[in-house]
Amino acid sequence: MKILNVSSGAVGAYFCGRLAQKGAEVAVTVRSDRELVAANGFEIKSIAGDFTFRPAEVLSNASEYKNDADYLILTSKVLPDADMVELIKPAVKPGTVIVLIQNGIGIEDAIAQAFPANEILSAIAYIGVSRIAPGKLNHQGAGKLIIGKFGGGESEKCKTLCNMFEAAGVPAEYTDNIAFYRWKKLLWNVPFNALSVLGGGLLTSEMTDRNRTEALCRELMKEVIAVAGKCNVTLPENLVEENIEYTRNFPPYKTSMLVDCENFRPVEADAIVGRVVLYGEKFNVSIPHLQTVYAILKAFDTHRKNTGVYNK
Amino acid sequence: MKILNVSSGAVGAYFCGRLAQKGAEVAVTVRSDRELVAANGFEIKSIAGDFTFRPAEVLSNASEYKNDADYLILTSKVLPDADMVELIKPAVKPGTVIVLIQNGIGIEDAIAQAFPANEILSAIAYIGVSRIAPGKLNHQGAGKLIIGKFGGGESEKCKTLCNMFEAAGVPAEYTDNIAFYRWKKLLWNVPFNALSVLGGGLLTSEMTDRNRTEALCRELMKEVIAVAGKCNVTLPENLVEENIEYTRNFPPYKTSMLVDCENFRPVEADAIVGRVVLYGEKFNVSIPHLQTVYAILKAFDTHRKNTGVYNK
Repeated sequence: MKILNVSSGAVGAYFCGRLAQKGAEVAVTVRSDRELVAANGFEIKSIAGDFTFRPAEVLSNASEYKNDADYLILTSKVLPDADMVELIKPAVKPGTVIVLIQNGIGIEDAIAQAFPANEILSAIAYIGVSRIAPGKLNHQGAGKLIIGKFGGGESEKCKTLCNMFEAAGVPAEYTDNIAFYRWKKLLWNVPFNALSVLGGGLLTSEMTDRNRTEALCRELMKEVIAVAGKCNVTLPENLVEENIEYTRNFPPYKTSMLVDCENFRPVEADAIVGRVVLYGEKFNVSIPHLQTVYAILKAFDTHRKNTGVYNK
Repeated sequence: MKILNVSSGAVGAYFCGRLAQKGAEVAVTVRSDRELVAANGFEIKSIAGDFTFRPAEVLSNASEYKNDADYLILTSKVLPDADMVELIKPAVKPGTVIVLIQNGIGIEDAIAQAFPANEILSAIAYIGVSRIAPGKLNHQGAGKLIIGKFGGGESEKCKTLCNMFEAAGVPAEYTDNIAFYRWKKLLWNVPFNALSVLGGGLLTSEMTDRNRTEALCRELMKEVIAVAGKCNVTLPENLVEENIEYTRNFPPYKTSMLVDCENFRPVEADAIVGRVVLYGEKFNVSIPHLQTVYAILKAFDTHRKNTGVYNK
């Protein structure tokens, strides 16, 4: 089984590294640390067992890949400047299944349009993993996937991939309704990711302290549910309280957007908040809380970009 | 004429220093730099002419003041932890006129309740002045006051004070309707101060760039106007566009809240945004944009306080 992991950051290296452990031939493209990873592989400290992932090939970009991948797994951040189609294009062959392990909603549209003959799988990752040094990762929480065919419905290729992950020790749930799970994850991500950053570095506990911030999280989630409904995805209302309770009872932690922010990386303002706002505006849903948060988050991200924070 | 300036920061020292230049006997209480100011006075670089302000007395707090002030001028920040009544109480004598040169709305209520027999004047300052070193100030913009009797109506004491300021070179407009001007200043302060901070350091130009942030400024101002109406203050709707245009055409600058933020000082979240939100909620005005901004700003300020930023 041949796999190409494009933009192999912490998330990609962990999941694809597990597949490699079970014998898959995994090549990667990386943005940084290429020499080091080629020499030593990724050293991964993991709650599921430490391991070293030595990719079959360590490439700078997809055009250097000369094989036909069975699965091309894209794990880049979803940022306005990143053209994901161009990123994977050179390695997409007629039979290549394209797998997107990424945050946000609406992220598959451009890929589906560019590669109408390829099957596209959409995956949600629940994992706490981060780069702690060049070539070194720390996997400290969860480590689960939910995968389904983009657009919904059954897929043998998807079942095969889930089975491979399961065999490699990665819980991977097969679904014929990935849109639901994507919106469900977004429901949590929108309030907690955005407010953790805009509040100047809030831990989850600071947003669930029965304060105004918690009330705002509720309002944001209600608006996301309303927009999801217009996109034909039914999120039950009780998820609002479930998310608050779950987060309040969990040990305090930093959201992934806050970790990105603190490491001078761009935040996924558009994929996580902007797209919901655009859908909401398209369908005339009343979303003043979402619009307020998005306007500030976008200004925050733009200001950092324009003042050189992301070049550090 | 005896004047006591309580909490003489940059704003207080500038305005009261001008009165001292014209012969008023001005004592001050300061929170910092006491020895230095007692020895050398405030050295003030000013677009209206540099000068040194040597107070008649430099005190640590109002209880050290043994005179009867004609005017007690309070220029402290309006913060939840600061008990302004306790701050001035020891120096409030039967005939003392209390003058508040402060930001926000509703700031006079507690003072009026504590000193029912004293006349209270409420003043709005338009000035760009900041502390550039211990005992050294830089006055680089405007420098104007609007003063009126708290609660409205005519006041001879207020006219006298305005005349003193005018004689000292400080434009000081007398009004019988200070509430209007206080809300009018707030109308600008709410969007631009709050978003400059929450956007991670936005200049005024970044908030008036015909972007989502500008649209958000408009929504916030519309909500402030609605709340003002319920408080019997009529702000004309065209102030919204006037504020946007004025700000867009002015050279880019940092708001006072952003300057406070960058200098590790608390932001006046409650006086500037919180009070409008409370009034809006009391009168059942729909203010989702204000509530969102206030929740985040309050969380931001609380997080900084709790993590020791303000002890630096």
